[in-house]
Parts: sequence; C-alpha cells; structure tokens
Amino acid sequence: MFHIDAPRVGSLPAGAGNRITDVPGVTVGHATLATGDVQTGVTVIRPHPGDEFLNKVPAAVAVINGFGKSVGLPQVQELGVLETSIALTNTFSVGEIATAQIRQLVGRHPHIGRGWPTCNPLVFECNDGYLNDIQAFSVSANDYLEAYRSAASAFEQGSVGAGRGMSCFSMKGGIGSASRLITGGNQDYTMGALVLANFGRLSNLTVAGRPLGRLIDKENRLAGNTVMSHEPEKGSIIMVLATDAPLEARQLQRLAKRAGAGLARTGSVYGHGSGDFALAFTTAYQIPAEAHTPAPRIALVHESMLDPLFEAAAEATEQAIVNALWSATTVSGRAGHRRLAIPEILPEWRELFERTIL
Amino acid sequence: MFHIDAPRVGSLPAGAGNRITDVPGVTVGHATLATGDVQTGVTVIRPHPGDEFLNKVPAAVAVINGFGKSVGLPQVQELGVLETSIALTNTFSVGEIATAQIRQLVGRHPHIGRGWPTCNPLVFECNDGYLNDIQAFSVSANDYLEAYRSAASAFEQGSVGAGRGMSCFSMKGGIGSASRLITGGNQDYTMGALVLANFGRLSNLTVAGRPLGRLIDKENRLAGNTVMSHEPEKGSIIMVLATDAPLEARQLQRLAKRAGAGLARTGSVYGHGSGDFALAFTTAYQIPAEAHTPAPRIALVHESMLDPLFEAAAEATEQAIVNALWSATTVSGRAGHRRLAIPEILPEWRELFERTIL
Amino acid sequence: MFHIDAPRVGSLPAGAGNRITDVPGVTVGHATLATGDVQTGVTVIRPHPGDEFLNKVPAAVAVINGFGKSVGLPQVQELGVLETSIALTNTFSVGEIATAQIRQLVGRHPHIGRGWPTCNPLVFECNDGYLNDIQAFSVSANDYLEAYRSAASAFEQGSVGAGRGMSCFSMKGGIGSASRLITGGNQDYTMGALVLANFGRLSNLTVAGRPLGRLIDKENRLAGNTVMSHEPEKGSIIMVLATDAPLEARQLQRLAKRAGAGLARTGSVYGHGSGDFALAFTTAYQIPAEAHTPAPRIALVHESMLDPLFEAAAEATEQAIVNALWSATTVSGRAGHRRLAIPEILPEWRELFERTIL
Amino acid sequence: MFHIDAPRVGSLPAGAGNRITDVPGVTVGHATLATGDVQTGVTVIRPHPGDEFLNKVPAAVAVINGFGKSVGLPQVQELGVLETSIALTNTFSVGEIATAQIRQLVGRHPHIGRGWPTCNPLVFECNDGYLNDIQAFSVSANDYLEAYRSAASAFEQGSVGAGRGMSCFSMKGGIGSASRLITGGNQDYTMGALVLANFGRLSNLTVAGRPLGRLIDKENRLAGNTVMSHEPEKGSIIMVLATDAPLEARQLQRLAKRAGAGLARTGSVYGHGSGDFALAFTTAYQIPAEAHTPAPRIALVHESMLDPLFEAAAEATEQAIVNALWSATTVSGRAGHRRLAIPEILPEWRELFERTIL
Repeated sequence: MFHIDAPRVGSLPAGAGNRITDVPGVTVGHATLATGDVQTGVTVIRPHPGDEFLNKVPAAVAVINGFGKSVGLPQVQELGVLETSIALTNTFSVGEIATAQIRQLVGRHPHIGRGWPTCNPLVFECNDGYLNDIQAFSVSANDYLEAYRSAASAFEQGSVGAGRGMSCFSMKGGIGSASRLITGGNQDYTMGALVLANFGRLSNLTVAGRPLGRLIDKENRLAGNTVMSHEPEKGSIIMVLATDAPLEARQLQRLAKRAGAGLARTGSVYGHGSGDFALAFTTAYQIPAEAHTPAPRIALVHESMLDPLFEAAAEATEQAIVNALWSATTVSGRAGHRRLAIPEILPEWRELFERTIL
Repeated sequence: MFHIDAPRVGSLPAGAGNRITDVPGVTVGHATLATGDVQTGVTVIRPHPGDEFLNKVPAAVAVINGFGKSVGLPQVQELGVLETSIALTNTFSVGEIATAQIRQLVGRHPHIGRGWPTCNPLVFECNDGYLNDIQAFSVSANDYLEAYRSAASAFEQGSVGAGRGMSCFSMKGGIGSASRLITGGNQDYTMGALVLANFGRLSNLTVAGRPLGRLIDKENRLAGNTVMSHEPEKGSIIMVLATDAPLEARQLQRLAKRAGAGLARTGSVYGHGSGDFALAFTTAYQIPAEAHTPAPRIALVHESMLDPLFEAAAEATEQAIVNALWSATTVSGRAGHRRLAIPEILPEWRELFERTIL
Repeated sequence: MFHIDAPRVGSLPAGAGNRITDVPGVTVGHATLATGDVQTGVTVIRPHPGDEFLNKVPAAVAVINGFGKSVGLPQVQELGVLETSIALTNTFSVGEIATAQIRQLVGRHPHIGRGWPTCNPLVFECNDGYLNDIQAFSVSANDYLEAYRSAASAFEQGSVGAGRGMSCFSMKGGIGSASRLITGGNQDYTMGALVLANFGRLSNLTVAGRPLGRLIDKENRLAGNTVMSHEPEKGSIIMVLATDAPLEARQLQRLAKRAGAGLARTGSVYGHGSGDFALAFTTAYQIPAEAHTPAPRIALVHESMLDPLFEAAAEATEQAIVNALWSATTVSGRAGHRRLAIPEILPEWRELFERTIL
Repeated sequence: MFHIDAPRVGSLPAGAGNRITDVPGVTVGHATLATGDVQTGVTVIRPHPGDEFLNKVPAAVAVINGFGKSVGLPQVQELGVLETSIALTNTFSVGEIATAQIRQLVGRHPHIGRGWPTCNPLVFECNDGYLNDIQAFSVSANDYLEAYRSAASAFEQGSVGAGRGMSCFSMKGGIGSASRLITGGNQDYTMGALVLANFGRLSNLTVAGRPLGRLIDKENRLAGNTVMSHEPEKGSIIMVLATDAPLEARQLQRLAKRAGAGLARTGSVYGHGSGDFALAFTTAYQIPAEAHTPAPRIALVHESMLDPLFEAAAEATEQAIVNALWSATTVSGRAGHRRLAIPEILPEWRELFERTIL
C-alpha cells in the first residue's frame, strides 16, 4: 500500500521507507475529501509525538516565490521554531484550518492567549481549483483533527489529503515524500522531504535529467486529459524538510533554500504564479515553551560539514516531487475536469529510463 | 464625535481631519463587540472606493518584530500590491476574517480561484486577551462585512473596532490615527497613519519627549487599574501608512520602516513579545488585475526627496499612537479586568504639557 | 574569435550574438593577467554608454548563498539602482577595484563625497586561488580602467578577464555569456546573462539534462588535471542579468532569483562554500542622479507577463554557464596546478549530444 | 582621560567603564589623522584577544537604512560569524582597509585563499567629507594596523579614530560608547555599544527626552559653526553591540534591530541619505574555524528572557550617541569648515538637565 514505484533520482542512499517519516518521531496523516466536485483535503505533519506547543522544534522558512497565501511564516522567521503541527490544504481553507489549530491548542492549554502568549498557526496551501470546487469551502476543522489524529510513520502518497485535487505539469500531482541518508562531521543523519506538488509547465518536466515533458507533449500523450499542455506555470509547491541533524535556525534556513535547487531540477523556473515555499525543521533538540525549563545544550553541525545536508535536501526534494507524480492516481472532479496520472500516461517509463542517457 | 483632544507631537502640519482618511479615497470602518467578557471587534481600511481586487494599490510591509500572526504578508512582499481591504482584529479571529475576505471577493468575482488566480486575504492582529475573552472566538464574518460597509472618511478612534479590547502601556489602547502634510520634490503630499496600539511597558511611555510613564508609575496613578505597572512589554502594534505620493513598492518599504522610528519615540524597544508590523500603501496609482488593461505611466518621487515623507511617516505614527491613548475610554471586560484611559489617569495633562521641557 | 561552439540548452531563441551585449547599450571589457603564477584579471560590464553615476539604471540583487565578499550590495538592495560599472575580479582584489571605481567617479565629478553623496562601488568576486597566486594581489586600478575602456559589444569568453583563473566542476571555468529573446505583454524583449563560473562538484555536472559529470568521472577523463574529482563544492558564481524590459526594482529582484534555477539545472546545490550572487538590471529607463531632472514616466511590464522573462533568465543563465565551460581554454598556473577545458576532455561531446536522450 | 561627562539616558545601570569594553575580552583602538584638511582615521573593535579567524564569534547585522558602503555584510548574514576585527573608517577608505584586513590574516595564515577558504573583511564607514578631504584617500593600511595593535580596554571617545571628521546634528560627532548591565533568565549579562555617529538634523536632536536641537536652533547657538542648522539628514551611523549573553545568530539579529530604537530616540528618522547599520556579536562562545575542533555546547538564553537585553541594546545605543556628542571636541578641517562640540555650545547643559521635565 505504501510502496512507490517511481524513477530514482540522485545518488544518495534513501532511508528505510524513503519518506519524511524516516526521520525518527516525524509522522504524517491525511484527511481526504473525494466526492463529485469536491476533491480536496488536509495533510498534517507532526514534528514529534509530544505536545508541539510545549516543546517547540527549531525551524526556518525560505520563500522562493512569495505569490502564496500560507500563514504562520513571519513568526517562524522571527523566532525560529514551530509551535503547532504543519498543516497543508487548499488555498481557501487556510483560515478554517488555522482556527482549528488554535482551538486544538487552546483545548489543551487554557492559558494560551491569557497568561501565556497566543499560538502561531502554520498552514501551507496550494490552489486545487482545477479539479476541486474550491469555492465550496469544503474542508472543516474536523478534517484537520482527523488528519492530525491519523498521523503515523506509514502514510500514503499521491492523490490523498491536501494532494487530492492538485495538478503538476498538467498531470495529476499531490503529496510526495522521500528521504536520504548522509554523513556530516562523522555523524549519520537522515534528511526527509514531503511536498505538496501543484506546479509546472508540461514542456519543462525533467525527471532524473530526462526531458519527459517534451516527450509527452510531442507524442500528445495528454489526449485523455482535459487541458492542453501549454498552460502557464501556476499552481504552487510546498516543500517541507525534516532532519535529525542539530542545526540552528540560520542553518535551517540555508537548508530550506536548497529545496529550491531540487525543485529547479524538475523543470521549475519558480513561475510567477507559483507560490513556492520551503520549510525546514530539526528534531535534534526542542526548545521548551517555558523559560524555567532548562535549555538544551546543543553542539551544532560545523558549517563546513553542511554540504552533504544540502545535497540531500535538494535530492530528497527532487525525489519527493517525482514520487508525487508516480504515486498519483487519475482524478476527475469539478466541471468534468480530469488529470491523468503519469504512470498511465507513460506506462513504459521503466524501459525509457533503462536506456542510458549518454 | 470625531475630535481627539490629545497632546501634539512633532512639527509638521496635520491634514484637515488629522486622520488617515485625509489621504483622498481612503476610508475606515469598525464593528465593535462590547458585551460582558466580549470586548473586541474588527476595523477595516479601504484603500480606495473601487474594487480592491480589480485595481490593486502598491504596498509594502516592514516586519519590525515578527512575533505575530498577521496573514497576507508574503504575497504583499513578493508582488508589491494589496488586493483586498486591510482588516484588523484580534489574534484568534484572523482565520475567520481571512475567510470572510475571500468569500467577499469570490462573491464579486466568480472566476477567482478558477480561471483567475486566488486572492490574498490581509488581516493584521493584536492579542486583546486581557480584556476580551479571546477564547470565545466572537468575531464573525458579518462583523467584517459590517466594518467594511461602514467605511467612511469620518471614523471614531479609541476603544472601537479592533481596538475595543486592546491595552497600551498598561492603560487602555486601541485605534488611533493622524496625518501630516508634506512637500517633496515641489509636490504636496499627505501622509496618513492608523495604528492598532496594544504594546508598551508603562515605565517607558514617552509622549512628545515627556517621560509620562515614569510619572504615572511614581505617583501610582494606576491604582484603579487591575494590573501593576511592571508587566513585560507584550501585546503588539499594527501601523498602517497611506500616502498619495507616487512611490514604487521598494520605496514604500523604506517608508514602512520609518513607522518604527515613530514607535520607538513613544518608548517601545520592539519588545520580544510584541508583534510590530508596518504596512505602507499609495493611492497615487493602481495596478490593474488584468494584463490587457493598459499599465499606468508613473513618474516616481525622486529618492532624494523622500526625507519629508520619512519624517511624516515617523511623526504621523507617533501622533497616531498618542491619539489612540487619548481617544480611548476606560473599558472593563473579561474576569473583571479593567484598563483605564489616560485622560482619566492624567486629567491635568494639558497643564503638564504647557510647562516647557527646557 | 567570438564564436562559442557549445551545447545548446533550453528552447528559447538566442539573440544575434548570444551574449549579454545583445541588450542594446550593454558592453563588456576585460583585463587579463596571465604570467606564471599570476592567472587572474578584471571584467567590467557597463550598463550603458553614458555616465553610470548621472544616469543610474534600476537593479536588484538576489543572494542565493551569501558566503562571498562582493561589495556594494546593501545599497543596491536599498535604493534599487546601480551607479557604477559592474566589476568582477578575484576575492582579494575587491578592495583595490572598489577604490578604483571611486577614483574614476571622483575624477569625473569632483562634488562626489562633498556637495554630492558618495558613490557605491560594485565589485563581485570569486576565488581563483587554485590557479592564481591570489596572495600576490596582482590586480591593479589600471587593470580596472583597461577593462572599463575596452568595453564593447563584442567580447571574449572563457579564460579571460576575471575568468582567467577560475575553476568549474573541477575543470576550467571563467566568463560565459548568453542571451534569449522573449515576448511579454505583446512586447519583444532581450534577456542577457553573463556569469563568472567558479563552482561545482564534477559528479553533479549536468548539461542540457545529460549527467556529463558522472561520465567524465567514471571514465577518469580528468587524468590530465591536477586534482581528483571528489572535491567539495566550493568556489562561487556571479550571475549578471540584463534586460531591456521595463521593470521596477522589486521585479528585478524576482528576476535575479530565477538565475538560481538556471544554476541548479547545471548541477549546483548552492554548496556551502560557494558564494552565489545574482544581479539583474534593466536598460529600459534611467534614474537621474539629480532631483531637478524630470523623472522618467514608466509603464512597467504587467506582473502576470513575467513568466517568459523568468524562463529566459533561467535559460540564459544555464546557457552562460555552459558557454563558460566550452569557451574555456586549459590553463596552468600557481604551483603547477592545471585545469583542463571541457572541449579537450570531451572532444566527442557533439556526438554524445546528438544521441537522443529518450 | 577616558571619563565622559555627559547626560545620562535611560534607567539601567552602566558597567564599570560605561563602554563596550565592559564586555570581557572586547578591546578598541584608534588611529587618528588630524593635519590641516585631513581629519579622519580608523577605529578597530576586536571581539576577543585571540585570533579572530581561528575562533569566530557569532554575529548578525541589521540594515536599518542600506544607503551605505560598508563591506562584509552578506557573509555575516549568511554564516552568522565574524572572522576579522571590526573596522570603522571613512567611506572612501573602505577598500584600503578591507585589503589590509586580508593581508593581516594572510600574513598569519598562509593557507587562506588556498587550502583554506578566503577571509571576509568587515569594514563599516561614514562620510566625513565635510571636515575631511575625503578625496585625498589619506588612510593607509598602516593606520589600520596601528589601530588594531593599540586596541585596549580603555580607549578614547569623541573626535578620534574614525570619528575624527564626523558630524552629528550639525555639530561635532564621532566615536561614542556605553554599556548597561542586565539580568536575563537568572544570569547577569553586560551589553556594550560603540557608535560612529555622523547623522541627524539639528532640529530633531533629542537628549533624554529633551528637545535640545530646537533649543540650540532657536537660540542660534551654532553661530560659530560654518553651516546652517537646516541641512537634510544625511551622514550615517554605525552601531556595534557586544554582549556576553549566549545568543545564536538569529537572536543577535533581533538584538541588532533594537539599536534602531535607541537611534530613533535621539531624533533620527533613518533619513534617506543616512546609511544606518547595526551589528551585534556575542563573546559567550566561539565557533572554531576547523571542523575537527569540537563544537562548543551552548545553552542559549530563552527567547522570552530577551526583553532586558533588548532594553539594554536600545539604551546603550542611545547613551553611546549622547557620549559621542559630549566627548567630541571642536574640529576645523577642509576648506575652513568647523564643527562645534556640544559641551561648548551648551556649557550650561547640566543645569538644563537638572530641571525636571515634568
């Protein structure tokens, strides 16, 4: 159920599950809405199994193209920590989910917003309005809670959760994940990526260096799709990186930027209409909410040892995008719109890839 | 009803109303909730009387201290325009109001999120949880619409709208506004400011150079208040600048930063817990939503002529904060909490200010 | 002399010279030092033939990886204009060239730094210390002036000027340039790129989607080189974009960021040690130094028409890097170090590229 | 010789010397050139007595107004450390001093720029062209070395070093320093500030809340000066903060921003022409240059305990500016220009300040 049969990119070894949850403690859950014109959902990433507000994980954001409506970023940039789960959904459901995150934390901690500070909802979004009736505002607080509660180490990819209605390179996109194992400064680390892929112009699609988009376009393989291949790049992508390497917020921001290199390798030029956001967090240590709790004593990864982590960030992001495409299933939705999944479009992809490039 | 009797700061002349609405076309409306433990509301600033989505005004954001939950900032920073009204409310109501802004625009333009891009809600917030039962989530979409519809050139200040439950320097804060008239490059311009003031440690309060906070503290004038004067600086401030000077987004960001100078003059050190955000927009020209509409031809203010605008931005912000304090009325709310208004605490302020400083 | 025989990347048409100087008015000049252990130089880009200080071109910077010593960036970011030529040189010569730029402008305008403001030198750098005895501080003010005076529309690429001692993917790097023609909003525009390429791990090198680096590595084609192929990514790259499209500084910064997408396609992950900087400027209008000169009236490209410019920025950058590699000649320098040029390493590259990828 | 007789601002206790060197390990040295038309110099701050390159101190920069030519900022922002001394000088001498810093480090470490990375010069500047013949390029590498070598815990303020030719509020400016003692999270810390003050419009000058500028202006006290009081705000200010509190780079950037609050209190609006830069560093731990050296294990100050540090940063900066004004001596220089020192202009300042404000 959880295995993804997809082309392999890059050269670093993958973790056991080739998923973001290879980083110990990280879990992912979905709530999927798939009825008629409603093809949407919520995906939740939990950074650790404990209370996200009491034990905050260090994090940073890289805004690669800020044409997007994700919320919670200014505080992450200022304070360098997460204090909620990371939620992904469609553009118009951000407000609903942000309120759901607040209610969840207030339910746990009645001092929030009174004796304690308020909490910072963190909701990322892409526009699934091609397949989903986004104007129906179908996603509810309960969907968030369902996704949160179902978070587990094993999770599905493709046309599920927030990925249900997403498009990518004029085909079906959605949720994808990958991981890479690296060594930095004599330590072994895991780098995990999860993307919500909803971007790209077909003619630009590049997979492991192969110009697949031009092939698909030339051979008119999208005949069963409902749109032409020459749409402008719009949509968006959300890229979340998790690692167990001990990094400070400044280093995590450097890491997050490298997601943009992985994204570019698949054929994106960070199109004007594509809100491209990356977030990186570490599970190596936690910042307690309360000042009287002793602060962790941290020995950070030496800056000159970051290159393997940067390589892994780019490669895991690239692989996660490929996995989103190959784990997707064809979805029909609003107004008869349909997005084909690439394994149906290119059933012979394996043979194509077995031919050497050079 | 709209006259504010408050100390005068700075030396530039004020506009006719000494309000942000002295900038032609700008209007402000409130919805106020004031019943028992619910002391909160919404304030809306409309940049012009037309359709904010079809005709976008240039804008920029300065994040002075990013410990805040305002939404819509990344897109303003990327694209340099507003495409909705500017809404202010309490921290927990941001999601509700953001959704209300989307619904409002979708109602007008059914192509939004389908053939057209989605829209970017813009909601700023401060935490009014001392006076208001913020956990009641009382603010509704209808309150937003009421504030929007009531937007006018004449508007109340003080304990109204989003300012209803706000505190400032351990006294009653809220909405304040001011304007200044300047000349830059042989042209006359208006600079307007509106603040949602919810920040400050009493002992730091400085008004027109006078250390009023220390006086109030020393003489124990807050005896009728429900808290001591030695609270840490928390809360937040939202500062909105409007001008009719033709500036590009980069110049507007420079302008927005100067709000921070005005804020500092009142005694703020941009405390850790205070989310301090500034937004500046110009009404001098509009960017059409659709590419086929001819672009405006703009002659920008010469960079070396910006100093009067910078002075005016700082001074209007400082005056708006003072006006927020002096137009406030004492409010009692949640759990018997009470914040006194400064005119009640310092009824002899006028005599104090008539004594020369030096 | 000026023709580059190199693989073609992307799909947009190139300008007449496939060089940054296809943007009308832009010129480039070099001064090259190539004697024994001294293998270095200066390259100058002039944005227009007039006085750079009196007529400033709009510009913006994107810092992709800030591990670098380039000077002049804060002011470009703040004011959105260039006021000197753009100089490229080695890391240790930045101070010398910055002073040379100041002296040049003071010589022209004796009021600079007195009645007029000072001027902002703009010098980018990479470290050529592998081939060049950088500790000899060989580059002089005269070299800057020579490069400036020799600036022309036709100019050499490869191991010349600032590119003389640079390395790229463990082979010879240096100066490369390219251009692309696009249409945005019913207008035709030219996008030019010039890079100083001194970055990359061999195994990551990707050219037009082909993993050439792995091939070269596997076949041990660098046997004649003086270093192994498994160096960490260091060095740096400077990417300069010029266009005649009318853009404001904010839009130019968006454009500059897309250089990073082109860079990533060649195999870079923005390695820790690689100072990766991009600058974009427009020749479409100029900002007069003095406020009494009438400001130009500009109609900017509509934001939604930027995608072709973004594609062109990424593609021209990628092509300029390829051109730097293919126009390079093998150079020997300090301590017997040698960097081979790729046309010597892969003489059969054309046949390789003629095989279809898929 | 080192005592400053100046008004006291704020309420926090000062350190033993009321200087940046109250932070243990920090030293300051000057080289002063004062002959005829040449009135300039160099000031050097050393973060610790050891090798700045081998043991790097964490640091961050806040660009308050980027109209300035300081060098070294992008790398400090990216890597979060200093690796040289901090040098201050006049605008046109930045290149010379940057090269001097490189030569100094290369002299110590011949691997720099070869087997090791290059080093990042860090030179801040203001324009002293009113009193100093800046076009004479008088400052030399030897002046840098002299300042560096003379660095000590006790040091002069006022019209010395880089401050020799600087102007402030149309009077004599220059070097000023101050310190404050605070408690954050049950620990005692020292906050030191050193400014190079060369900014301000006379009418805006505010000292400890007193509008001294208006008084001086009204009473025409600058009759002995060579310029009128109504100059636009230009010049610049460099603000350096040192602390022994254990902070990461992100926190240091937050701290650096608060220097802007102290600056605003003295009457600055961050004028267009004023390059206002702040740098903050900590001496609490050092990052070793080489990865094989064990990383320090750090327990950072809890974020919610930062407020006392923020107050101290603002107050120490404000006091350092006041100390720069009051320790200045009247200087005559280029073209007969003269700047009076405020103690001569307002000899009765003490009586003025003894009158209570309210």
